[in-house]
Amino acid sequence: MTTHSQIRRPAFFISDRTGITSENVGDALLEQFDGIKFKRATYPFIDTQEKAHALVHIINKSAEESGIRPLIFSSISNNEVREIVKTAQGLHLSYFDAFLGELERELGVSARHSVQSRVHNVEKYDARMEAVNFALNHDDGVSDRDLKEADVILMGVSRSGKTPTCLYLALQYGIRAANYPLTPDDLDTTDLPRMVKPYKHKLFGLTIQPERLHDIRQERRPNSTYASLSTCRSEVAEAQAMFRRHGVPHTNTTHKSVEELAVSIMQACQLKRRF
Amino acid sequence: MTTHSQIRRPAFFISDRTGITSENVGDALLEQFDGIKFKRATYPFIDTQEKAHALVHIINKSAEESGIRPLIFSSISNNEVREIVKTAQGLHLSYFDAFLGELERELGVSARHSVQSRVHNVEKYDARMEAVNFALNHDDGVSDRDLKEADVILMGVSRSGKTPTCLYLALQYGIRAANYPLTPDDLDTTDLPRMVKPYKHKLFGLTIQPERLHDIRQERRPNSTYASLSTCRSEVAEAQAMFRRHGVPHTNTTHKSVEELAVSIMQACQLKRRF
Repeated sequence: MTTHSQIRRPAFFISDRTGITSENVGDALLEQFDGIKFKRATYPFIDTQEKAHALVHIINKSAEESGIRPLIFSSISNNEVREIVKTAQGLHLSYFDAFLGELERELGVSARHSVQSRVHNVEKYDARMEAVNFALNHDDGVSDRDLKEADVILMGVSRSGKTPTCLYLALQYGIRAANYPLTPDDLDTTDLPRMVKPYKHKLFGLTIQPERLHDIRQERRPNSTYASLSTCRSEVAEAQAMFRRHGVPHTNTTHKSVEELAVSIMQACQLKRRF
Repeated sequence: MTTHSQIRRPAFFISDRTGITSENVGDALLEQFDGIKFKRATYPFIDTQEKAHALVHIINKSAEESGIRPLIFSSISNNEVREIVKTAQGLHLSYFDAFLGELERELGVSARHSVQSRVHNVEKYDARMEAVNFALNHDDGVSDRDLKEADVILMGVSRSGKTPTCLYLALQYGIRAANYPLTPDDLDTTDLPRMVKPYKHKLFGLTIQPERLHDIRQERRPNSTYASLSTCRSEVAEAQAMFRRHGVPHTNTTHKSVEELAVSIMQACQLKRRF
């Protein structure tokens, strides 16, 4: 016998664009319910009545097969397309339905009710590309010119999470983030590394739990001195001491997502998005 | 005299986490209103009553100074913190308020009403790091082993948008995306490049408007043969012909955001996120 608790409830994330926001809204809400399992499916680019009808068919089939009412998180700006989607069996959670009417009343004008490609905007694309290229060209091999042009300089020991954070800052905000790896030589002195000293106001430090760093380095160079727990412990302690001594703002990356790190850095360094 | 049409209406994006989802929801709604200007501010990590009180003060000050009621997009899971934020002057658009009660009734259980760090999850971090490292190590210099291990291989002429798309696929979905740049030599023959031939099922092609490619290449190597409009035209035409001849799915990157490209590729190649 199958009981309801064993069946995963279908959860659909639907959008006339990428579906990334629908997924994020849905995730934020669903993770409020511990212990319930969902069977997730994302349907992006639902921007015509034909696609909406085809999707309704898929949702209804899933409702019948699972025997549980699906959850339907949707972000669709076109009224006709949205109305078709709403005929599907399920609990509909649509922020266009929830908020657009309220916004129209508040702003005193009608909404456009159609998709606008967010990028068309060549300027945004260029700022993003430039920042990504900056991060790539300057990863782990910095010159004084790089540091001068950077919006922020992430400093930390090898494998503390600098690179993905730089890339995320570039992709999400167009921020030019340089990456200064603290070497054992840098950590031997009590001073800031010579190269970054003129740019102290742009520095941000990343620290990490030595145990976690050890695990990450083991993957890369198993059983090396580089990866040993004692090396990890002393490097992290020295880096942390350097950050404190020179008043460099810093954060521990161990339990943070790349998104959380990027936003913390934007906030701490008062950076403004470039698009 | 200042009229209302000249004053930008304050729009606040508030979250107990990064605020990225609040911003995205707000953007999707606000861009439905052409011609209205907003003064945007994001407040992430509002996760204590103290921070909420301080924020209410900021919002009320902004309401008084601008003389227009602010819009407040918020994503806050804790009831007490949310109630404090709601005392701020403004139109409140909160998807926790709009949807959490409905979800509780549908699921028949109470929500947790607290923040859970999304990453804690070491597995997710590792998948992401691995994918980012894959994209970085294999950017523009592929080996057969890289192609074998890739989830997808993006193919296109130089500067057609492969690298940022690979990085986004890695960061957002943990997808290992390799990057095969089509050289003039590759484009001289009617065959697929020898290296990628065994992996035809993993190929995805990027095309671009020759005029846009010309602009991008001009930035890099001004007035070179590489950047000339005629080179761009013939390279793009040859690449497109190759994709068609061999049935390689492809898309034009010119008017697409990196997010849209990534999602289109996930869909076309039926890729599953790795976390």
